[in-house]
Amino acid sequence: MSTFATLTNHQIRLAARPVGTPTRANWQSTTEPVAQPPEGGVLLKTLALSLDPAMRGWMNDAKSYIPPVGIGEVMRAGGVGVVMASNTPDYCVGDHVSAGFGVQEYLALAPLDFKRSGLVKIDLNVGTLTQWLNVLGMPGMTGYFGLMDVGQPQAGETVVVSGAAGAVGQTVGQLAKIKGCRVVGIAGGPAKCEWVVKELGFDACIDYKAGPGAVRAGLKEHCPKGVDIYFDNVGGEILDDVLARINRKARIIICGAISQYNTTTAVQGPKNYLSLLVNRARMEGIVVFDYADRYHLAVAEMAGYLKDGRMKSKEDVVQGLETFPEALVKLFTGENFGKLVLQVASE
Amino acid sequence: MSTFATLTNHQIRLAARPVGTPTRANWQSTTEPVAQPPEGGVLLKTLALSLDPAMRGWMNDAKSYIPPVGIGEVMRAGGVGVVMASNTPDYCVGDHVSAGFGVQEYLALAPLDFKRSGLVKIDLNVGTLTQWLNVLGMPGMTGYFGLMDVGQPQAGETVVVSGAAGAVGQTVGQLAKIKGCRVVGIAGGPAKCEWVVKELGFDACIDYKAGPGAVRAGLKEHCPKGVDIYFDNVGGEILDDVLARINRKARIIICGAISQYNTTTAVQGPKNYLSLLVNRARMEGIVVFDYADRYHLAVAEMAGYLKDGRMKSKEDVVQGLETFPEALVKLFTGENFGKLVLQVASE
Repeated sequence: MSTFATLTNHQIRLAARPVGTPTRANWQSTTEPVAQPPEGGVLLKTLALSLDPAMRGWMNDAKSYIPPVGIGEVMRAGGVGVVMASNTPDYCVGDHVSAGFGVQEYLALAPLDFKRSGLVKIDLNVGTLTQWLNVLGMPGMTGYFGLMDVGQPQAGETVVVSGAAGAVGQTVGQLAKIKGCRVVGIAGGPAKCEWVVKELGFDACIDYKAGPGAVRAGLKEHCPKGVDIYFDNVGGEILDDVLARINRKARIIICGAISQYNTTTAVQGPKNYLSLLVNRARMEGIVVFDYADRYHLAVAEMAGYLKDGRMKSKEDVVQGLETFPEALVKLFTGENFGKLVLQVASE
Repeated sequence: MSTFATLTNHQIRLAARPVGTPTRANWQSTTEPVAQPPEGGVLLKTLALSLDPAMRGWMNDAKSYIPPVGIGEVMRAGGVGVVMASNTPDYCVGDHVSAGFGVQEYLALAPLDFKRSGLVKIDLNVGTLTQWLNVLGMPGMTGYFGLMDVGQPQAGETVVVSGAAGAVGQTVGQLAKIKGCRVVGIAGGPAKCEWVVKELGFDACIDYKAGPGAVRAGLKEHCPKGVDIYFDNVGGEILDDVLARINRKARIIICGAISQYNTTTAVQGPKNYLSLLVNRARMEGIVVFDYADRYHLAVAEMAGYLKDGRMKSKEDVVQGLETFPEALVKLFTGENFGKLVLQVASE
């Protein structure tokens, strides 16, 4: 077994909890020697990391679906990489894997941590590395199970999805089209909206940055039969605008609220929530980890759609571990166009 | 057939839409001769009317689950009464019925309007007149189907209900106890709270008027295992307090939001709604009319509980049609103690 201690592992750690939008001051760059693979374990090299809105929540000292990242800890991040060294027959050098890498260049995992870190092999014949962070990764799984299990779409229904050009949104919208729904996206700026319609095949896309009342007017125009399913990634005013147009027995999937993540005041609650009463409608949260035992089924289905061209996967790839602090903020300004990926190394 | 034209029908009509809490100025008292029963129809005498928080919504010129009451129309109200005259073998003079009487002393119904007005015979051997407006009436049906169909309680779960001493609340809490749940009420003032615990058998009741933080502290104390089901009649801060303590896969039944009905500013949305995401929980509206074809089943079940003493039914009876404007406002100040009933006449 070769030694890796001559290699340096660059890392980004949480230095301080942010107030509002995170800045460089919230992060600390550290280095340490690369660890040997533990007994029965593996040493992984990070190739690309998934940058997700949920990361902002993990930075807060708040009770949530997973514990916050501790001060001084390597920032949590899912990613894809390659096995550098292995002490188990289950993983061979050169295997590609998906795992909770953290924002760092290398990760040594003991067998007891395989499951916790979500370590699984990925097949580059099924999808590219970045597709494994997008449609075939956490965002894709989130979109799949949120839409299918919570939303339960029926052909002919109208599905609205916010963050339509983002990782989860592009999966949700394309999948809803495949299932026979009318699909209306909400995204920021004409370029994203045009792409969502022309490339992804949504029926329409509303530019929420087009001015006050743009979402209300767009929903009225593009959802003439009302809204049966709303997949919400953004919260705030847009959630209220959609609530005002839902149909009886509508389903609202609460996946995120990116408009509220950096607020330094109270979260804006949906003041139109009584539309749920009037319409006997339902608003329900989803956390993707609950579906881990069925990921393989969703991956198989969506890999098929990628292969036959019915589904596309767009990633926005940013280079270099050290750009992480600025890259993350792109999610909150809406600068990213497609699933935001941080490429850390090549093979 | 006798003539009833010598009798006077006193009515209360909506004169103007209220801003905030309704006052006398929103109402107009009118009289007209009592109509003959139409061909194939009936003439009914109002005995008692149900006063409900939902009435406030019907006074607004807003899209809802039923059209608003028009200006100049007799105010909509459900009630119980007796058949005075009948041109159909289906109803005999002296039969007791439940129907949408409106706030008036008499109602002539043509057969085409039987269904729309919800005309059904009621059996005073099964429940008293006022019980037919409470546990066996709309509030009881609302509580029953909201809890059982939307909430789906499991024995051992913790159920919280606001407006616990009110019509819907007392049904929900007692039914949840019968189904084996831990039940915590929220009500205003020590007298109601004591009654809810001692008479209705709730495990605890939180006095929301006991000062700032009383609900938060009470939930912490009385729901040590968190909240699995919240039946919400009030909205506002209390909804947020409960959202902060829900369990995974919790169900929040949105039945009403009495704290918000007279607001002259925007409705207060639940700023803790992202707790739905973290907890994979669901918030769902209920409108009782959807369950009309199953009312008879719920009535049969709950009449059994009334008979065997497992369920009690408390009504707060106010006398006289002309007191309607002031009586209604009692609902919003929380002055009523039990289901608020307006007794219009005796037999």
